Amino acid sequence: MSSEFRRIARLTERFGAPPPPDVGIGDDAAVLRPRGALVATVDASVEDVHFRRSFAPPDVLSARAIEAAASDVAAMGASFAGPGAGLLLSWSLAPWVDDDVFDALVDGAKRAADRLGAHVLGGNLTGGAVLALHTTALGALAGAAVARGGARPGDRVFVSGPCGAAAVGLRALLSGREEEPQLAPFVARWRSPRARVDLAADVSARCVAAIDVSDGLAQDAGHLTHASGVAVELATGRLPMLAGQREAARSLGCDAVALALEGGEDYELVVASREALPTERWTEVGAVVEGDGVWLRDDGGARRRWTRAGWDHFGG
Amino acid sequence: MSSEFRRIARLTERFGAPPPPDVGIGDDAAVLRPRGALVATVDASVEDVHFRRSFAPPDVLSARAIEAAASDVAAMGASFAGPGAGLLLSWSLAPWVDDDVFDALVDGAKRAADRLGAHVLGGNLTGGAVLALHTTALGALAGAAVARGGARPGDRVFVSGPCGAAAVGLRALLSGREEEPQLAPFVARWRSPRARVDLAADVSARCVAAIDVSDGLAQDAGHLTHASGVAVELATGRLPMLAGQREAARSLGCDAVALALEGGEDYELVVASREALPTERWTEVGAVVEGDGVWLRDDGGARRRWTRAGWDHFGG
Repeated sequence: MSSEFRRIARLTERFGAPPPPDVGIGDDAAVLRPRGALVATVDASVEDVHFRRSFAPPDVLSARAIEAAASDVAAMGASFAGPGAGLLLSWSLAPWVDDDVFDALVDGAKRAADRLGAHVLGGNLTGGAVLALHTTALGALAGAAVARGGARPGDRVFVSGPCGAAAVGLRALLSGREEEPQLAPFVARWRSPRARVDLAADVSARCVAAIDVSDGLAQDAGHLTHASGVAVELATGRLPMLAGQREAARSLGCDAVALALEGGEDYELVVASREALPTERWTEVGAVVEGDGVWLRDDGGARRRWTRAGWDHFGG
Repeated sequence: MSSEFRRIARLTERFGAPPPPDVGIGDDAAVLRPRGALVATVDASVEDVHFRRSFAPPDVLSARAIEAAASDVAAMGASFAGPGAGLLLSWSLAPWVDDDVFDALVDGAKRAADRLGAHVLGGNLTGGAVLALHTTALGALAGAAVARGGARPGDRVFVSGPCGAAAVGLRALLSGREEEPQLAPFVARWRSPRARVDLAADVSARCVAAIDVSDGLAQDAGHLTHASGVAVELATGRLPMLAGQREAARSLGCDAVALALEGGEDYELVVASREALPTERWTEVGAVVEGDGVWLRDDGGARRRWTRAGWDHFGG
């Protein structure tokens, strides 16, 4: 246990006392003084479920876990700019986490927190058979919260960035081909997602429904349709991809459009809006229509219902 | 993953939509509308670290995990009565968690949340090699937050209930003797702790420093002395125990006073106060003095520094 106290001291030193609360890491709980509404969410990144230890250095894994949790904050139209916002880290440390690995985990968490503009308010350390990084994210709402259930027929559907790129990277990692130059940008997408808290103002002011793409565009759009009581039609030819994504997917024996629809962990946002969103930040990929479920329309105009079960991390 | 959605549906059904936020389980994040300061803390209860699967039924394990997290809320002088307060559950479900076990885990969580007067605001489910129950607790402060660092020489030190009783119970469980009638009350103490959120008003209005007894009275009092820059003197003869605790400890080959000082997981509070606290709720066990560390004074007046390394759950 003395190692636990050394490690807590390391966390305290690295994250310091957060400015808004008057109590932070090292006491029983942090004190928050929010001045408006908050959003609260928790997410976990577990070894051999969400990642393998070999997939990235420890600092990249811890940063990734935090970005993934923060993505749900972005999907509500919230950010970490505001009193009361911040992160709580609950880490189960496997036996392979020695002091160097621990310090790297802390460094990655600090980097992600800084990028997000988020204070680390507190945390918990415990042992465990595998490394498990649970992150609670508390976001501040500057405007209205945007839930999943506000989409109506006639709304336009947009995504904030490439779809399926992280899934291509994961396939490269699973195949041991992450060093191949044409696959490297996709591996980087999987390893280093960035929660789109930079889009909080767009989402809050201009969108009527939003969700982040963690399980796959089609599946996450499906959650939105279900909550809203509508259908969504996606134009498969309009799905944004990184340069070289079709070739990279093909080289891994995958179909790029299938991965764009079903590959998770891009942590981009898919939103419904009554208005056109700025094209420098958003790509229009479809529309909300009457009905239920997710429908795909290809470039030839053929329309079919999306029925795949979605993405289960290491399955496909 | 379809099992995950069934399980989320079960959670939604069981916990419903929480009254204060307008968005709860099932969206990307819950929306909280606090009207004052909150406290935020996270705690984990991990199979084969904090408990063994055989130690209690699943509903008892999940209730226990929540009470343990809530205990840190109590130790700040906060409770779950107030807008913005609530719980987020992040569970890693081992392969042995089938649908019946899952339902039992949910039942236990619901029971603990109801007892605490806490809303379950959201959560996350994932797989894992072992059952790991991470709980984020957001408490509402009616008065001032009480940290660990406010104790001064001359303050009086109180505890809110039996010390070492849960540790006796854990020893009984580890020895496979939990069925013995004289050990049953102690096993119940280990299995079913109750976070002392009922004492929030006492702590907030009358105490200058507080911590909960999770690692052991002496070690937790030590954290308080360290944060406050003082020493604490504990009268070993005054430590409150359950009826039969000395005999029960002896029957397990343990010293009752050692367990009262070093046994963790009682989840009672140890506090420093400038005034006498009501004797029906608090037992005076010592005083804050100049110096550092934790000192023990026995009934004969002998004084020695406490030096043991504390409690490491399954070690001792």
